Amino acid sequence: MTIHSTAIVSDKAIIEANVKIGAYTIIYDNVEIAENTIIEAFCEIGVSNHLSNGDILYIGANSHIRSHSVFYEGSVFLESLVTGHRVTVREKVNAGKNLQIGTLSDLQGHCEIGDFVRFHSNVHIGQKSKIGDFVWIFPYVVLTNDPHPPSDTLLGVTVEDYAVIATMTVILPGATISNGCLIGAHSSVKGVTEANMIYAGSPAKKICSTSKIKLHDGSGDAYPWRKHFHRGYPEEIAKLWMSE
Amino acid sequence: MTIHSTAIVSDKAIIEANVKIGAYTIIYDNVEIAENTIIEAFCEIGVSNHLSNGDILYIGANSHIRSHSVFYEGSVFLESLVTGHRVTVREKVNAGKNLQIGTLSDLQGHCEIGDFVRFHSNVHIGQKSKIGDFVWIFPYVVLTNDPHPPSDTLLGVTVEDYAVIATMTVILPGATISNGCLIGAHSSVKGVTEANMIYAGSPAKKICSTSKIKLHDGSGDAYPWRKHFHRGYPEEIAKLWMSE
Amino acid sequence: MTIHSTAIVSDKAIIEANVKIGAYTIIYDNVEIAENTIIEAFCEIGVSNHLSNGDILYIGANSHIRSHSVFYEGSVFLESLVTGHRVTVREKVNAGKNLQIGTLSDLQGHCEIGDFVRFHSNVHIGQKSKIGDFVWIFPYVVLTNDPHPPSDTLLGVTVEDYAVIATMTVILPGATISNGCLIGAHSSVKGVTEANMIYAGSPAKKICSTSKIKLHDGSGDAYPWRKHFHRGYPEEIAKLWMSE
Repeated sequence: MTIHSTAIVSDKAIIEANVKIGAYTIIYDNVEIAENTIIEAFCEIGVSNHLSNGDILYIGANSHIRSHSVFYEGSVFLESLVTGHRVTVREKVNAGKNLQIGTLSDLQGHCEIGDFVRFHSNVHIGQKSKIGDFVWIFPYVVLTNDPHPPSDTLLGVTVEDYAVIATMTVILPGATISNGCLIGAHSSVKGVTEANMIYAGSPAKKICSTSKIKLHDGSGDAYPWRKHFHRGYPEEIAKLWMSE
Repeated sequence: MTIHSTAIVSDKAIIEANVKIGAYTIIYDNVEIAENTIIEAFCEIGVSNHLSNGDILYIGANSHIRSHSVFYEGSVFLESLVTGHRVTVREKVNAGKNLQIGTLSDLQGHCEIGDFVRFHSNVHIGQKSKIGDFVWIFPYVVLTNDPHPPSDTLLGVTVEDYAVIATMTVILPGATISNGCLIGAHSSVKGVTEANMIYAGSPAKKICSTSKIKLHDGSGDAYPWRKHFHRGYPEEIAKLWMSE
Repeated sequence: MTIHSTAIVSDKAIIEANVKIGAYTIIYDNVEIAENTIIEAFCEIGVSNHLSNGDILYIGANSHIRSHSVFYEGSVFLESLVTGHRVTVREKVNAGKNLQIGTLSDLQGHCEIGDFVRFHSNVHIGQKSKIGDFVWIFPYVVLTNDPHPPSDTLLGVTVEDYAVIATMTVILPGATISNGCLIGAHSSVKGVTEANMIYAGSPAKKICSTSKIKLHDGSGDAYPWRKHFHRGYPEEIAKLWMSE
């Protein structure tokens, strides 16, 4: 365990073996940080909040939280969480393993996230979102939830496995982005999309099957992306994808 | 008064009774923080700037500024300001009471803001904006001001009382969002809107009266929102709204 | 040289004469900061990363990096860099002199930037971008690079001299914004634009020549902007522009 001399770490926090905590970082009481995790400088981990119901913040093993990030108490992240800088994560996020949260992303809490999900920079995840496994969400995408703002109604967005949402797109309240869909950049989507289709525009329309898109280098189909893109995934998963 | 031992607080700053200042926060000279206010960790309050003309930063009583926020000198916020994390607020903001500024929002200064206004996360308020009372602005909305960028002309946006601007919308220079309007997500708006109407699209068109929208639970009209949504407002205001 | 007592500055960093380093800022090993530069509070300068190949971070003379900013090692910025707050700059940025990077902007690294370029707040510059001289990019603009995300193909965006990209616009992978173009707010652009033309919409269409736009005060043509807008440029450049 390596805790920088300027870090402020609560005696009540549970810090496992080989955790590294950076300069000026604050670890509050209601936190468990599993082994081999790195928390960089200027972070706040486990901010208390009455909406957390006193639940702990759990950061799984082998995680890496980059500088200036703020996590509230009351969320669970399984192993190998990786974040960019200055991410903000509110209470009641229930996330699987190997989640990546890009710089400046803002998770509003009260949401479900599967395994191996990637949020690029500056992604905004509204409350009540349900995100499957192997989802990709690109910069400046917003998952909304209020059908008639402001109101007390929250209709979260569902994003199914392997779906991809390109940059600067709004997913409207209650929408479902189905398995393997690609949503084009600068779109707004409502309703339920058909699996493995491309949608684009504002309002988004169905364009065609993702199978129509070819890789730029001429080497084959661009989708399903898991047939050619494996960076950052375990080898056994890539093998499984190639044998499908 | 509770000032964390690592906070750096100028002797010249005026700090009233029962103010709490978090770890590693810096309070500069030209600042008055009224009673019962909380300033969280890693903030900078009262950054000096030649555009401030030496005017003080005044933070009203019972305010709460969350961590990593930066406020310049030369602005006034009446009582009960609440911010998210990492907000940036430049000089010459003249704001009423009970303003909420969400995480990552960026107020460029030189603007007027009424009472009980809510900026959700990641809102960008350009200079020369004039915002009324009880306005709602949702994530990734930009209020612009330059009709032919870059230039020295600043035509600010006006947003009247009770107006609502949904996520990822641009309000073009000199536009007026009139009383009670709802601007749909992912729109761009120019000119003057008609009161209590819905506008959407890019460029935005008038869709219909807000009175056409029903609450999702079937309990009645969604607008005017003040007839059903009262969270965070004083009870006497809610009573007034219900008796209108 | 004025280094705040709470700053953490590596002995290996090269800090030239008359550099000022703010409270709680961290300067890592592989950094050269040229004379008369100001680094404000809560910054991290020279974050190490395996993608930097051990290259140094060079910050030119007379620069000003505002608080909460994060710069990786492996980039070069010539003289008079100015940033807003909380900018994030990854490795392998090769930038000219007098670059301005607004608050919350995110440079993903591996890009080329000319002289006298201005990024307003919250600009996202994807890898492989090539940006000329005297370019203006406004808030919430994204320069993308992946034609079929996620993939290993990166087709960067080119933005030529004097081009202007207005707020909330996406430039699609491989697009070229030609010399002197104006891209309207809330647009998405693909392909190669024709020089000195206005494009707007999503997908963007050619509207007309920029020469059709008049200044709001009736004093003449709005474009080329360099004929009337000189704030922040050296006098000799303004003179040259006026004599063209």
